Amino acid sequence: MGRGRDPALIAVDWGTSSLRLYLMSADGAVLEAREAAEGIMNVAAGDFAGTLTRRLAGWPADALPILMCGMIGSRQGWREVPYLDCPVAPADLGRALAAVESGRGRGIWILPGLRWRDGAGVPDVMRGEEAQLLGALADPGAGADMDCCLPGTHSKHVRIAAGRILSFSSHMTGEVFALLTRQGIIGRLMPGGLMALDADAFAAGIRRAAAPGGLLHQIFGARTLPLMEELPPPAIGDYLSGILIGHELRATRWHGEVRVMAGTELAARYVRAFEALGIPARAMPADLAARGLWLVARRAGILA
Amino acid sequence: MGRGRDPALIAVDWGTSSLRLYLMSADGAVLEAREAAEGIMNVAAGDFAGTLTRRLAGWPADALPILMCGMIGSRQGWREVPYLDCPVAPADLGRALAAVESGRGRGIWILPGLRWRDGAGVPDVMRGEEAQLLGALADPGAGADMDCCLPGTHSKHVRIAAGRILSFSSHMTGEVFALLTRQGIIGRLMPGGLMALDADAFAAGIRRAAAPGGLLHQIFGARTLPLMEELPPPAIGDYLSGILIGHELRATRWHGEVRVMAGTELAARYVRAFEALGIPARAMPADLAARGLWLVARRAGILA
Repeated sequence: MGRGRDPALIAVDWGTSSLRLYLMSADGAVLEAREAAEGIMNVAAGDFAGTLTRRLAGWPADALPILMCGMIGSRQGWREVPYLDCPVAPADLGRALAAVESGRGRGIWILPGLRWRDGAGVPDVMRGEEAQLLGALADPGAGADMDCCLPGTHSKHVRIAAGRILSFSSHMTGEVFALLTRQGIIGRLMPGGLMALDADAFAAGIRRAAAPGGLLHQIFGARTLPLMEELPPPAIGDYLSGILIGHELRATRWHGEVRVMAGTELAARYVRAFEALGIPARAMPADLAARGLWLVARRAGILA
Repeated sequence: MGRGRDPALIAVDWGTSSLRLYLMSADGAVLEAREAAEGIMNVAAGDFAGTLTRRLAGWPADALPILMCGMIGSRQGWREVPYLDCPVAPADLGRALAAVESGRGRGIWILPGLRWRDGAGVPDVMRGEEAQLLGALADPGAGADMDCCLPGTHSKHVRIAAGRILSFSSHMTGEVFALLTRQGIIGRLMPGGLMALDADAFAAGIRRAAAPGGLLHQIFGARTLPLMEELPPPAIGDYLSGILIGHELRATRWHGEVRVMAGTELAARYVRAFEALGIPARAMPADLAARGLWLVARRAGILA
């Protein structure tokens, strides 16, 4: 193993509900990855330093710089890092790293999140997704102009132009789906447990989203169709998911092939939805956040 | 007190979460009204007969017919009454009363709910609102052609033409608002307790619903604006409510003045929203369900 494969960075994606750590080499390879359900909302008494130390056990952490992204940089996190306003170039992010006072020999830094104001002045924000975007920009197939879709609890649609993150919008698709199916009346008819995607029901939901009547009306069909025994209970979730994702994707104007960044299953679902709308899309590789953090660290000159 | 003012009917609006009872005279006046949080979901062991008997205490119930509407006629209710398919005339509803086996001297009947299929064949349903519509049709100012809006957990938009209930659509506005504010991330920043309407925030939400970006994106503004201290926490609920009601009302094509039927406060909120959209609207009097049930009972010849 040459010098390039020695550990040179610990990259950390610390969100609201989960903590992901990557031990990375000087040439940007992920040597080991760890994941824990210790999002910032689950860290007792704000003991971020203690939590991090425990999760780094066995890694040569004392000799390595640590670069973090995500909600760890929010008001509820370790240190609040001001948002950078879009448009933002990768180099802007590298220059805006915020150091955390930790007393360690090697430093800990947090990548700032991004803010964008639409034509009406309404702000939108992201924390963590910007690291994935930096990773995507470094992808061999990336262009200077790209549309990205980052599905999730609060999906992000991102426009990249001339190599800069130009603008973005958040969509509460994942949260609304979870609320409707776990707490709402639609969930009462749904069977529990994970199921394979019902592609027909999902496609029917996407088509439904193109009809008149509006989202608030259409989702009621996920209640009435099963009531009339015209949609089997195991298909309710995918029908509803199709309506919501259909509305989400139709709300944005897309240019060219869309890069979809999410876990395998969710990314495949979104690629399927894009295809149903006649929009080319492809899923990006995993660990893009780690890749993006490594790029920033290298540019900032903090790699070990 | 003449014959007309003697009790002649007990009208019952028995929904999912509440039970409303009206002691009515032969000329259609409400002599006494009662309300309890004993919706069909809260009736233990399906003891509808026992619950009803307790709530009727002190009324001359044995001598009076009982006519009910609402979820009491659903699969989870006392007796499942098949839906009538729209278009439906008031006389159709009167002919379709379903008798409940009760052993009482005077009968108990349930009014059927309504079903409508849109152009795509997707079914929509109501149970209980049809009684209010019958009441509205008998209003002195009613025309044979009318648009009605019945706000609530699942708002109904109803088109009445040539005196018949022609079509309708349900909108999950109230449920989505409750889920987002009670269980979702938006609610975390909201203060508890009831507050007076913030008319400016509500109007801003309604305007926002007319912008591009879609509902799932726009509601995220109820999170980011307070985060940036550009919307005070007590205004979050009304801003969100404006976005949701704005989307709801814009999804339907309205003709002429809209009749709004709900409790005083909710009706006033919807009238305000219609006015913001330039659509004439007025709130209808309360107790329309009782009025509608009385009209059906009189037509069916079951008044005492």
